[in-house]
Amino acid sequence: MDEFSLIRRWFAELTPPGEGIALGIGDDCALLVPPPGAQLAISTDTLIAGRHFPQETTAADIGWKSLAVSLSDLAAMGAQPFAFTLALSLPAVDEPWLAGFADGLRECARTAGIALVGGDTTRGPLSITITVLGHLPPETALRRDAARSGDLICVSGTLGDAALALRFWQDGRAPASAHERMLRARLDRPTPRNAAGVASRGLAHAAIDLSDGLLGDLGHICQASGVGAELAIGELPASPAFAALAPTDARLGLQIAGGDDYELCLCVPPAQLEAVRKAYGALPLTVIGRIVEVPGIRLRDAAGAIVTSPAQAYRHFS
Amino acid sequence: MDEFSLIRRWFAELTPPGEGIALGIGDDCALLVPPPGAQLAISTDTLIAGRHFPQETTAADIGWKSLAVSLSDLAAMGAQPFAFTLALSLPAVDEPWLAGFADGLRECARTAGIALVGGDTTRGPLSITITVLGHLPPETALRRDAARSGDLICVSGTLGDAALALRFWQDGRAPASAHERMLRARLDRPTPRNAAGVASRGLAHAAIDLSDGLLGDLGHICQASGVGAELAIGELPASPAFAALAPTDARLGLQIAGGDDYELCLCVPPAQLEAVRKAYGALPLTVIGRIVEVPGIRLRDAAGAIVTSPAQAYRHFS
Repeated sequence: MDEFSLIRRWFAELTPPGEGIALGIGDDCALLVPPPGAQLAISTDTLIAGRHFPQETTAADIGWKSLAVSLSDLAAMGAQPFAFTLALSLPAVDEPWLAGFADGLRECARTAGIALVGGDTTRGPLSITITVLGHLPPETALRRDAARSGDLICVSGTLGDAALALRFWQDGRAPASAHERMLRARLDRPTPRNAAGVASRGLAHAAIDLSDGLLGDLGHICQASGVGAELAIGELPASPAFAALAPTDARLGLQIAGGDDYELCLCVPPAQLEAVRKAYGALPLTVIGRIVEVPGIRLRDAAGAIVTSPAQAYRHFS
Repeated sequence: MDEFSLIRRWFAELTPPGEGIALGIGDDCALLVPPPGAQLAISTDTLIAGRHFPQETTAADIGWKSLAVSLSDLAAMGAQPFAFTLALSLPAVDEPWLAGFADGLRECARTAGIALVGGDTTRGPLSITITVLGHLPPETALRRDAARSGDLICVSGTLGDAALALRFWQDGRAPASAHERMLRARLDRPTPRNAAGVASRGLAHAAIDLSDGLLGDLGHICQASGVGAELAIGELPASPAFAALAPTDARLGLQIAGGDDYELCLCVPPAQLEAVRKAYGALPLTVIGRIVEVPGIRLRDAAGAIVTSPAQAYRHFS
C-alpha cells in the first residue's frame, strides 16, 4: 500500500488551496495562516469500528461521523473550524469503501468549511484518528470551568435520538418509517453545532458537547467549575420521532445517559438567554435546568420535586 | 480502559502550562497562542510496530522515536516546535510499557521544547499517531519545490548508521561494541534537527528530512522543483562506526537508500554555504552534490564519472 497515493487520490479534493492554507498536502508539513491574533483550538479523537460506530455502518457515514465528532469539540469551545489531519488505518485497500469514506468525509468538511491538511494511511484494523484545528479570538473560548451558580442550563436541538436509533439497530430493527430513518440519521450523520458554538461566544459562560450523554458531560462542567446542577426532566427536548417511538420506561435514560447527540450543552446567564436564542436562529435552544452551588446533579419533576437519582435513571438505561 | 485517566496519568507532565499554551488537556479542546503573525506548520505520522520499528524495540525508544520522526518534519520546514497531540492504540493497559513509553516521549518532548496538548487512547494493535504543530515567520518555510539549478546539495550529520543498525538487528547481532551501540542509538533515538532547520531559514532554498533514504527523499525535492541532481558518492558523510563496520559492498546502498537517518538534506545556494555552516555550529554539514537542470539523479565518483545508476545502487541494498 502506498500511503501517499492513497491520501492523494481519495482526499485531494478535501484540500482546496483556500483562505488560511498557504501550502496543502505534499511537503514535509502543510502551512497554515491563522487569522491575526487568533488563538487556536485543537482536539484529537480516534474512532474504532464496533466501539464508536456499529461494524455495519456504511463507509460514507463513517467518513462523515469521524470528522463530525471532532468538529463538535470545536463547536463546544466556540472555535471556527480551520483545518484537520486524518490518520486512517485500514485492513486492506478497498476502493469502494475508500470512495464512500472520502465522500462522507468531504461532505462533512465542505459543510463545516474545514480543509484536510495532512494525513497518513496504514494497514491495520479499521481506525480513524482526526486532529482538528479551529481559531477564535483570545479569551473568548467556552470553557468547562466557567459555569456559575444561577446560569441556565440549555441544550441545542433534541436529546436521545441517536441512542434510540442505536437501540433499534442493536435489536435488529431496520429503519422503515420516516421517524425511524430520521433517528438513524441522527446516529450516523450527527450535525456538529459549529455556527451555534461561534454564536455563543461572549454570551454563554461555559459549554460542552454531548457525546457521552447529558449526565456525564454536564458532570464534567460541574466538576471543572465547582458547581452542581438541577435538571427539569419534563423540559428535556425530544424530537417528534423520539416522542413517537421511544418506549416510555426508556425515555429518561435515553435522554440523559444516551450518547452521540453531539448537541451543545451551555451554561447561560439568564440575561443573555434571549441573545443566544436569537443568535441560534432556527436551531432550538431549550432551558433544561439551572446551575447551583451544591455539587452533584439532581433531577426534578414539573412540581420541583426530586423524582429520581441519576444513578436510578442510568440503571433504566443500561 | 478509561482513556482519560490513561492520558492524564502518564502524560500529564508533558503538558506544562507554558508559553503559547493557554489551556492544556482536559477541556473539549486545548487552546494555543501562536506568536503574532506566525504561520503554522502541521504534520501527522502514524508509526506501527514491526513496520516503522522492530517489534522488540523498547517502550522508551518507541516513545522517543514516535515524536522524533514528526519533529523531523518540522525541522525540514524550518518550523519551531510548538505543540503535539498523541493518539495511542494499545493491545492492553500495560503499566510498565506505558511508563517507559511516556519516559521516552517526555525526554524527546523536553529536548525539543514541545508540549502535549491533546490525545486519545484506544484498545487495539500497537500504533502511535502524532500530529505536530510548529510555527515560523511567513514566507520563510523550507519547501520541497524551491531548489534551483546550481544549489549545493548538503546533508547534516552522517548517513547510513540507522540502516546498518537495522541490518545488524535483523541478522540477530546484538550491539556489543561502542560502535555497535552508537549505530543502534541512531536507529532507536534519532535526533531531529530542529535547531538546524530553524537556522536554515532564509539561507537554504529547499529542504527535506531523510526518512526513507537519500535517493527517494532527494527525488521528492527534484520532482517538486523540476530539477535533477548529481551526487558525489565519495563525499557521503559516514560516522566512524559506519566506516568501521559497514560491509564494503553494502556501504553505498545503506547510505543512499537506507532510511531512518532523520538528517536534513538541504539545497543551498553556494554563496550561503558558509553562513549555513556557521549557523549549524558543531553539527557537520557536508556538500554531497549539486542541483542541475537535467531531471533524474546521477551518482559520480571522485573523477566525475558516472559510476553506477541509482537503480544499481539500490539493488546492492535490497
